[in-house]
Amino acid sequence: MAKRDKPLTYAEHLQLERLLSCQQRQSELHGRPAHDEMLFIVVHQAYELWFKVILFELDRIQDIFSGPRTDDSGLGAAIHGVTRIVEVQKLLIHQLDVLETMTPMDFLDFRDLLVPASGFQSLQFRLIETRLGLRPAERVSFDERPVDARLEPEDRVRLRAAEARPSLRDQIEDWLERTPFIQVSGYDFREVYRQAVVDMLEQDAALVRDNPMLSAAEVDSELASIEVSRQRFDSIFDEARHRALVEEGAWRLSWRALQAALFINLYRSEPVLQLPFRLLSGLMDIDETLTNWRYRHALMVQRMIGRKVGTGGSSGHDYLRRTAELHRIFGDLFALSTFFIPRSRLPGLPDDLRRAMGYSYAQGGAQGGARRDAEGGA
Amino acid sequence: MAKRDKPLTYAEHLQLERLLSCQQRQSELHGRPAHDEMLFIVVHQAYELWFKVILFELDRIQDIFSGPRTDDSGLGAAIHGVTRIVEVQKLLIHQLDVLETMTPMDFLDFRDLLVPASGFQSLQFRLIETRLGLRPAERVSFDERPVDARLEPEDRVRLRAAEARPSLRDQIEDWLERTPFIQVSGYDFREVYRQAVVDMLEQDAALVRDNPMLSAAEVDSELASIEVSRQRFDSIFDEARHRALVEEGAWRLSWRALQAALFINLYRSEPVLQLPFRLLSGLMDIDETLTNWRYRHALMVQRMIGRKVGTGGSSGHDYLRRTAELHRIFGDLFALSTFFIPRSRLPGLPDDLRRAMGYSYAQGGAQGGARRDAEGGA
Amino acid sequence: MAKRDKPLTYAEHLQLERLLSCQQRQSELHGRPAHDEMLFIVVHQAYELWFKVILFELDRIQDIFSGPRTDDSGLGAAIHGVTRIVEVQKLLIHQLDVLETMTPMDFLDFRDLLVPASGFQSLQFRLIETRLGLRPAERVSFDERPVDARLEPEDRVRLRAAEARPSLRDQIEDWLERTPFIQVSGYDFREVYRQAVVDMLEQDAALVRDNPMLSAAEVDSELASIEVSRQRFDSIFDEARHRALVEEGAWRLSWRALQAALFINLYRSEPVLQLPFRLLSGLMDIDETLTNWRYRHALMVQRMIGRKVGTGGSSGHDYLRRTAELHRIFGDLFALSTFFIPRSRLPGLPDDLRRAMGYSYAQGGAQGGARRDAEGGA
Amino acid sequence: MAKRDKPLTYAEHLQLERLLSCQQRQSELHGRPAHDEMLFIVVHQAYELWFKVILFELDRIQDIFSGPRTDDSGLGAAIHGVTRIVEVQKLLIHQLDVLETMTPMDFLDFRDLLVPASGFQSLQFRLIETRLGLRPAERVSFDERPVDARLEPEDRVRLRAAEARPSLRDQIEDWLERTPFIQVSGYDFREVYRQAVVDMLEQDAALVRDNPMLSAAEVDSELASIEVSRQRFDSIFDEARHRALVEEGAWRLSWRALQAALFINLYRSEPVLQLPFRLLSGLMDIDETLTNWRYRHALMVQRMIGRKVGTGGSSGHDYLRRTAELHRIFGDLFALSTFFIPRSRLPGLPDDLRRAMGYSYAQGGAQGGARRDAEGGA
Repeated sequence: MAKRDKPLTYAEHLQLERLLSCQQRQSELHGRPAHDEMLFIVVHQAYELWFKVILFELDRIQDIFSGPRTDDSGLGAAIHGVTRIVEVQKLLIHQLDVLETMTPMDFLDFRDLLVPASGFQSLQFRLIETRLGLRPAERVSFDERPVDARLEPEDRVRLRAAEARPSLRDQIEDWLERTPFIQVSGYDFREVYRQAVVDMLEQDAALVRDNPMLSAAEVDSELASIEVSRQRFDSIFDEARHRALVEEGAWRLSWRALQAALFINLYRSEPVLQLPFRLLSGLMDIDETLTNWRYRHALMVQRMIGRKVGTGGSSGHDYLRRTAELHRIFGDLFALSTFFIPRSRLPGLPDDLRRAMGYSYAQGGAQGGARRDAEGGA
Repeated sequence: MAKRDKPLTYAEHLQLERLLSCQQRQSELHGRPAHDEMLFIVVHQAYELWFKVILFELDRIQDIFSGPRTDDSGLGAAIHGVTRIVEVQKLLIHQLDVLETMTPMDFLDFRDLLVPASGFQSLQFRLIETRLGLRPAERVSFDERPVDARLEPEDRVRLRAAEARPSLRDQIEDWLERTPFIQVSGYDFREVYRQAVVDMLEQDAALVRDNPMLSAAEVDSELASIEVSRQRFDSIFDEARHRALVEEGAWRLSWRALQAALFINLYRSEPVLQLPFRLLSGLMDIDETLTNWRYRHALMVQRMIGRKVGTGGSSGHDYLRRTAELHRIFGDLFALSTFFIPRSRLPGLPDDLRRAMGYSYAQGGAQGGARRDAEGGA
Repeated sequence: MAKRDKPLTYAEHLQLERLLSCQQRQSELHGRPAHDEMLFIVVHQAYELWFKVILFELDRIQDIFSGPRTDDSGLGAAIHGVTRIVEVQKLLIHQLDVLETMTPMDFLDFRDLLVPASGFQSLQFRLIETRLGLRPAERVSFDERPVDARLEPEDRVRLRAAEARPSLRDQIEDWLERTPFIQVSGYDFREVYRQAVVDMLEQDAALVRDNPMLSAAEVDSELASIEVSRQRFDSIFDEARHRALVEEGAWRLSWRALQAALFINLYRSEPVLQLPFRLLSGLMDIDETLTNWRYRHALMVQRMIGRKVGTGGSSGHDYLRRTAELHRIFGDLFALSTFFIPRSRLPGLPDDLRRAMGYSYAQGGAQGGARRDAEGGA
Repeated sequence: MAKRDKPLTYAEHLQLERLLSCQQRQSELHGRPAHDEMLFIVVHQAYELWFKVILFELDRIQDIFSGPRTDDSGLGAAIHGVTRIVEVQKLLIHQLDVLETMTPMDFLDFRDLLVPASGFQSLQFRLIETRLGLRPAERVSFDERPVDARLEPEDRVRLRAAEARPSLRDQIEDWLERTPFIQVSGYDFREVYRQAVVDMLEQDAALVRDNPMLSAAEVDSELASIEVSRQRFDSIFDEARHRALVEEGAWRLSWRALQAALFINLYRSEPVLQLPFRLLSGLMDIDETLTNWRYRHALMVQRMIGRKVGTGGSSGHDYLRRTAELHRIFGDLFALSTFFIPRSRLPGLPDDLRRAMGYSYAQGGAQGGARRDAEGGA
C-alpha cells in the first residue's frame, strides 16, 4: 500500500472533478441548449483519450525498435502493444455506432456554433498518422491546402517535430533489413526463391503446351498470362525494377526489407519466425482497422451532412474516403501476398539454417544445440 | 456562425488541454512508473464520461415521463434516448475487451498503489442504477456492509437525493397504469384475456383426456401440468395473488401496470401500440445489456485478480456476479412472456376499440374518423 | 403439441444429417487435404444461409409495399424486417473477422483447386442487390464483361426475372409519392419550405453585408458562397433541375418522392411520421451496412491475394472497392441531409394539419378528434 | 488448376442446392406457416456449421498435443487454432443479437410444433464441451436427469466415445507437467518462489508492526490478514493441501501442472515462454467466451419464454445460468492469478537458465549458444 496523508479515492485517481467539468456545450453558452451537443463532445473527448493511449503505446513500441537490436523479449512486448492498439481502434470504430444515434437534424441544432472548429484540428490524430509512418508528401490535400494548415501554430510545430523523427514504418524497415537468415553462408533466399518461382511457372507453361484440349489461341493466351506473372515477380527479384516502382509510389519499403518480410511470411512456422510473423500481421491489422475506421467515418459524415462542407470547411465525405484509399501505412505488406507461392512449391530450408532457427535450451550451455523439441514439453 | 472574439478551435470546444492533463499515474508519482496504469486510468475515465452521457439522457427521458401525460412525440423522443443508452452500454461492454489487454501481472505492477480506491466509489454508476430504479433495499450488500458505505460523504448525500425522487421504473409504472384501452366502456382486457386462457387450457385438457394413446398415468400427469399452468396465470389475474408475490419479491410492478404491459405486448401491431411496445423492448434492452456488462465484468475481475479481494477490499468476482443476478431493474418485463398465449388463441379487439387505436388524419378535420390506411401512403 | 408418428428431434428439425454432410473439401477429393478449406467452405455456406434469410425478409417487406396502401401495422412489420436485415448484415461483417484467421499462405494450399469458382457466382447475393434496387445499368462491370456473364445460365434467368419486378427502391419511391400531408388544402410543403430557405439565406446575406469586421473582398466571398447554397437548393425545388440531375445520375428518386422524404425527416417528431422516419433510417442502415461490408471485404481480399486476380479471374480488391463506392441503393437518402435547415428556421405546420397527424382514439368515434395525449397514457 | 471434366462452380463447391433445401419449416408442414421459423432454423443451422468448424480445429489441436513432445512449430499451430475457435465463439455470441429480433410472440407462433425437440439434443455442442474437458460428473443435471438422457441413442454412443478419450484439458495438463525449466539442476522453482512469497509477506508484516499510526487492534487485524494470505499460498506450495482442494473440486489441474502454469505466467517475457503464455491465455479466452455465450443465451431464453419451461421441457434460464457458473473448463487458470506476486518481488532466474531459455541461432552450429539478440534482427 502506498504511503499517503489520506487514502486515495477513485475520484482522485481519475481526477473526476476536472474530467467531468470539461463538457461545456457551446449551445448552452449561446443560450440555446442543444441536447445532442453533449454526446458530440463526449464522443470526441473519448476519441482523444484513446488517441492518448495509442500514442503512449507507440512510445513504448518505438523505443523497442529504436536501438540496433531487438531481442525476443522486446518483440513480445511490441506485439502486445500492437495488439492493444488494434483493440483500441476497434473500439473507435464502435464509437461511430454511438455517434450515429445523433440524426442530421439534431446535429443542425448546434452545428453552426462550432464553425470553424473541426476534427481536422486534432493534433493527436495527425501525430498518430505521422508516428505510424504517413509522410507529409503522402497526405491527401484538402481544398488545395495542406491539411496541417488548419492546425494551430504550436500544434504545427509539434507535428513537424514528429515528422523529423523516424516513424514506426521506418523502424520496421530497419528491423527487417537487419533480419539474419535470408543471406547466410551458402544460402541466399532471394536466389533460391527466384529459382523456385521460375521452375513453377515453367512447369505451368509446360502443362499448357502439352494440353491437347486447348486451341492454339488458348495456349497463346495462357502462356501470355504466365509471362505476365513472371514479370510481376521482377518487382521483388530485380533491384532496378524495385527502384522504379518506388519512384512510382507502388512500393515504399526497401528491396531488402521486402525480401525479409516475404521470407518471414513464407517460413512463418519456423520457431524463430513466429513472433516476427505475428508482428507483421499486427501491423497489417493496425493499417486495416485504421482504414476501416476512415471509411466508416466517411460514410457517417455523408449521412450526417450530405454534400455540404464539413464543420471545418471540408467537403468531408470525399476527402475522408480518399484518405481511406491513400493514407495506407503498411500497404506494402498487403501487396506482398501477390508474391507468395504454395507451400508445395516452396523450397525447403537448409538443415543447419533450420536448426539455427529452432530454440535451444541446453542446460548449462555445455551441450549446445540440443533442440528443445527433442526434450518435449513447453 | 456564432459571434466570438476569435474563432472557436476544436481543442477549445473539447477543452483538450484540461482533459488530456487528467491522466496522472500514481505509479509515476511514486517513482516507479507502470506502463499499464495509463490504460487503466483512461478506460475508467472513458467509463465515467459515458456514464455522464447516460445520466444526461436519463434527465430528458425522466422529464418526458414526469408529467401526467406523455404524448407520442414525447414517446418517440424517449425511445430515441433509450436506444442511445443501449448503444452506449454496448460500447461499455466493448471497453472490457480493451482493458483485458492488461494482464494480471501488468496490473500487479501498480495495484497496491491504488488501495483503497475502487470502482465501488463511482457515484455516477450508483446514480445510474438508482435513477433506473434499483432501490437501496434491493442492493446486494458487500462484506456485510451496504455498498454506499464506501462512498465519500458528499457523494452519499447526492445518492440519497436521487433515491428520494421517482426512478424511471416508478415513472414507467405510472405511465403503464395510465394506459387507456385496457378498460374502456364495454371492454375489460383482464376479463377477456382470462377467459381466453381458461378456454385454451380447457381445450388442451380435453385433448389429453380424449387421447387414446395416453395411459391413465400419463393423462394424470399431463392434466396436473395443465393445472400448474392455470394456477401460474393467477399471478396476473388475481390481485391477492399478485400482492403476495410482490411481498415475496417475485413481482415489483403494480397489478394494473403488469396488465397494461401484457396488453401492449399482445397487441403490439395495433398502430397506437407500436411506440409503447418499442419503449418496453428498449427498457428490456437496457436491463439485459447492463446485466451482460455486469457478468462480463465479473469474469474479467476473476481473470485479473483470481480469488484475491478487489482493489476496494471486495471479493470482487462473487459480488459482481451476484449483482448481475439480483440487480435487475425491469425483470418483470422478462417474466411477462410467461403469460403470453399464441396469436391464434388471442381474442380479437372490439371493432370500435381497434378503430380508436388507429391513426386518423382527416384533412381539415371535417371528415372525422377517416382512417389513414384508407387513403394509402405513409 | 403437433401430431406426429414420433416425436420431432432437434436433428430432424434442422436436417442436420444433410446439412453437415455438405462440407466436401476439394483438396481432400484431390488427395492433398488443406485444413483451412473447411473454414472457407463453412464461412461461405453461412453467408448463403443468411442470404436466404435476407431474401425471405425481403419477400415479406416487398409484399407489404406491393399494394396501393400501406397501413401502420404493415409499416411496423416492414421496419421490423428491415431491422432484422441490418442485424444479419452486421453478422456478415463479423464473419470476415473469422475468415481472416486464414492467412494468405493457408489459402494458397487449396486456392488453385477452386478455379474458376468464385463468389461472383453467388446468385443469392445478386438477387439481394437486385431486389433492393440495384439496376443492371448501375452495375460496375468487371474485366469489361457484365458481372452476370459469370452466372450459370439458369441463374441468369432467375436474375433477369428479379430485375423485371419492382425493387424495394421502386416500391419505396411509390410509397413516398403517395405520402399525404405534403400537399393538402391550403398547404404546399414545397412552397412553404422554399420560402423558409430563401428567407434564411437572405438573413444570412444581410448579416454578412452589415458586418463591419469584414473587408469588401470577404463580403463578396461570403455572399458568393450563400449564392452557391441557394442554387444547390434548386435541385430540390426546381423540377427541371431535378430532371437534369437524374440524367447525370446524381438523383435517382423522383421529384415528389424526394420532397416527401425531406418532409418526413424535417417533421419526424409528429406522431404519424415516426414510423415513416424509422423506415427511412432503416433503409439507410441497410445501405450503409452493405457498403461497409463491401469495403471490408475488399480490404480482406487485398490482404489475402494482394494484386493477384481473384478466384474467378477478378482483380478482386479494385472491383470490390468500386462496388462499395458505386453500388449504393439509397444514396439519395444520404444526400438529402444537404437540404435540411435547422429546426429554429423550420416553418411550423398548420394547426389542422398537425392535428390530423396526431393519433385520435375517440371512444366510440362520436367525439371525433379528441387527442390521445389529452387523456394521458400510452 | 485442378483437372476436372467441367469447371467447378461456386454452387458445386458449397453444395448450395442441398444446403439451401435443408430449411423446412414445421409450421409450413402443418399448414400454418410462421414467418420467424425460417430465422429460427437458419440461426441454429449456422450454430451447427460453426460447431463443426470448432470440432475440426479441435482435431488438429488435440493431434498436436497427443504425442510426448510438442515443438514450437506445433505450439504456433495450436495457438492459431485456439485463436480461430475464439473468433468463432465471438461470432456465436453475435448470432444471439440476430435471434433476438424474434419476439416472444413471434416464437409462440410455432413453438408448440417443435416439442420435444430442443437444443439439449445438439450432439456437436456436447462433443465440444467434452473434448475441451468437461467431465460427465461435472455436468449440471437437469430435471434430476443427466443431460445426455435427452440425446438419441446413437448420439449417446458417440458422446461416450469422446468421453473415453483424453480431453484437451487432460492434454494441456500433461504438456504442463512436461515443462522443463521449473526443476533443473540447481534450480527448483517452487522452492525459490515459496521463499520469495514468505519474504514478501514478512516484510509486509514488519511494515505493519513498525507503523506508529496503527492502533494495536489495527495491527492485529492487518497481521491476521497477512496470515490468511500466507495460508492461501499453501494451496500451491503444499502437495497435501492441493490434494485436499482437488477433492473439494476447488482445483482440477495436478500440482505440478499448476506450478508450471504459474511459472509460465510469471516469466512470460522470456523468449521460450512467450508461445506457452499465449497458449494459456488463448485457453482462458475459450473458457471466458464460452461462459459469456452461456450467460447471454440464458438471458435471451428468459426474455423469450419467461418462467415457462424450455422447448425440451427445461426450465431453461436457470439451468443455462448454472452451466455458465459451473461448466468452466479452465477455471484453474483464472484462479491462478491469486498466486501472482508483483514483478518487483519476483526472484530472478539463474543466468544459465535464462540463457537456455533464449533463442540460439548460431550460424552453422559451430559457435553454439550465441544469442540471437546479440546479433540484432528478427
